[in-house]
Amino acid sequence: MTTAQLVSEIKKKQSFLCIGLDVDLNKIPEHLLKEEDPIFAFNKAIIDATHHLCVAYKPNTAFYEAYGLKGWKALEKTIVYLNENYPEIFTIADAKRGDIGNTSTMYAKAFFEDLAFDSVTVAPYMGKDSVEPFLEFKDKHTILLALTSNQGAFDFQTKQLEENELYKEVLKISKTYKNSENLMYVVGATKAEYLAEIRQIIPESFLLVPGVGAQGGNLQEVCKYGLNNQIGLLINSSRGIIYASKNEDFAQQAAKKAQEIQNEMSAFV
Amino acid sequence: MTTAQLVSEIKKKQSFLCIGLDVDLNKIPEHLLKEEDPIFAFNKAIIDATHHLCVAYKPNTAFYEAYGLKGWKALEKTIVYLNENYPEIFTIADAKRGDIGNTSTMYAKAFFEDLAFDSVTVAPYMGKDSVEPFLEFKDKHTILLALTSNQGAFDFQTKQLEENELYKEVLKISKTYKNSENLMYVVGATKAEYLAEIRQIIPESFLLVPGVGAQGGNLQEVCKYGLNNQIGLLINSSRGIIYASKNEDFAQQAAKKAQEIQNEMSAFV
Repeated sequence: MTTAQLVSEIKKKQSFLCIGLDVDLNKIPEHLLKEEDPIFAFNKAIIDATHHLCVAYKPNTAFYEAYGLKGWKALEKTIVYLNENYPEIFTIADAKRGDIGNTSTMYAKAFFEDLAFDSVTVAPYMGKDSVEPFLEFKDKHTILLALTSNQGAFDFQTKQLEENELYKEVLKISKTYKNSENLMYVVGATKAEYLAEIRQIIPESFLLVPGVGAQGGNLQEVCKYGLNNQIGLLINSSRGIIYASKNEDFAQQAAKKAQEIQNEMSAFV
Repeated sequence: MTTAQLVSEIKKKQSFLCIGLDVDLNKIPEHLLKEEDPIFAFNKAIIDATHHLCVAYKPNTAFYEAYGLKGWKALEKTIVYLNENYPEIFTIADAKRGDIGNTSTMYAKAFFEDLAFDSVTVAPYMGKDSVEPFLEFKDKHTILLALTSNQGAFDFQTKQLEENELYKEVLKISKTYKNSENLMYVVGATKAEYLAEIRQIIPESFLLVPGVGAQGGNLQEVCKYGLNNQIGLLINSSRGIIYASKNEDFAQQAAKKAQEIQNEMSAFV
């Protein structure tokens, strides 16, 4: 998917909501556990009920890998279902990968070709030759971790280097990578006050903002500092939407939560 | 596996060799492609031929994920085969994972419980609460990226922070993490001269050293600066061993390469 298509979808739906599909079998409605593939059954119901309210879905691969082969199969079925039924939706493999050059190419193939996601999240620690292999894929997007939403972000990311904090160096240096037009960035919503400075370094890029909702981020604040002339934001909510209810009506309750956020977002589009 | 068991195995085999199982279907002998599971068939042959010469195997997950479900299944069969037939071997999932707390726990379960690896490689960018969930597992080891062997290592890892370069901050700060006795570190062999300084910060920890062989690292140099009183090194070679030959005798040729390295290593044990 091109960035222009994503922006057009955001305008059409008046939403820049991304729904995180982080499926934990201990948290989904009990009646689904009788299904042959409870993870996929859960995802399918959530997707069918919410696809008109969001522009992106983001399965975090950890939740699938934890269930081994069954989990990987459910991930594969989920992305196939999305691509076949809702090709207008932007898909994010939240995998936080990154390795030396030839190995990053294998990861890129795994997520862009085998699983056919539109984008993948990548960790920057290993630098240029660990990121550029992902950027070679046309109309695929690499979402680089810049400033994450967890407490540990302050361990290294906000440490002062010679000129900048580390996360700003990540932003600045990654802009020089080949095909850097295929980059987006993860910026945690728990640090909305950083967004103004981030926008000075990367005014045009899309930002994937986790941490609104369960992690305490504030939509108004994020929009105030993070919006650009093509919106430029994807705001993720996972638990707050998908676990709105453990009853038979879980998908409708999820849609209700998504609707609330979409209503709030429409004022900004 | 405990660290003491690993050290005992190193002394018994007079080897601290780790063999990287990075299986690329374009590089394995053609006759294996007729097998039902060529990846596993390749791994099994390599393992059976080399297990007495090395103390660890390290499949890099990228090479398995690139083949989707089939790949994940081959990874599962490989670790089951290792644990059933060679339980004395230390197993490393080279996955370079790392995410916010509850999600890192899912990754830890995936690699320590579902796949039953002894260790997993983890990226430090997201800090303490992304690493500590891995450290909670008894007799399981978390191998943190410190200084990697690729060119991109100089993008961020060697940048000067207020007191130290970033990779030294990673070493220092991670030592304060809960259960830090379960930490090991990745240190690229292409930078053997850094090892002396690294040993001042973490004298006791095991180091996983990739990059000897194909990536140009030198065993003598690494040993000179990296050995400690319990050896404290696992030196990895992947392509240099497993792709020694594309003929029917590929496993014997791999063993020959491994034997050469083991011979060299025995002088240091």
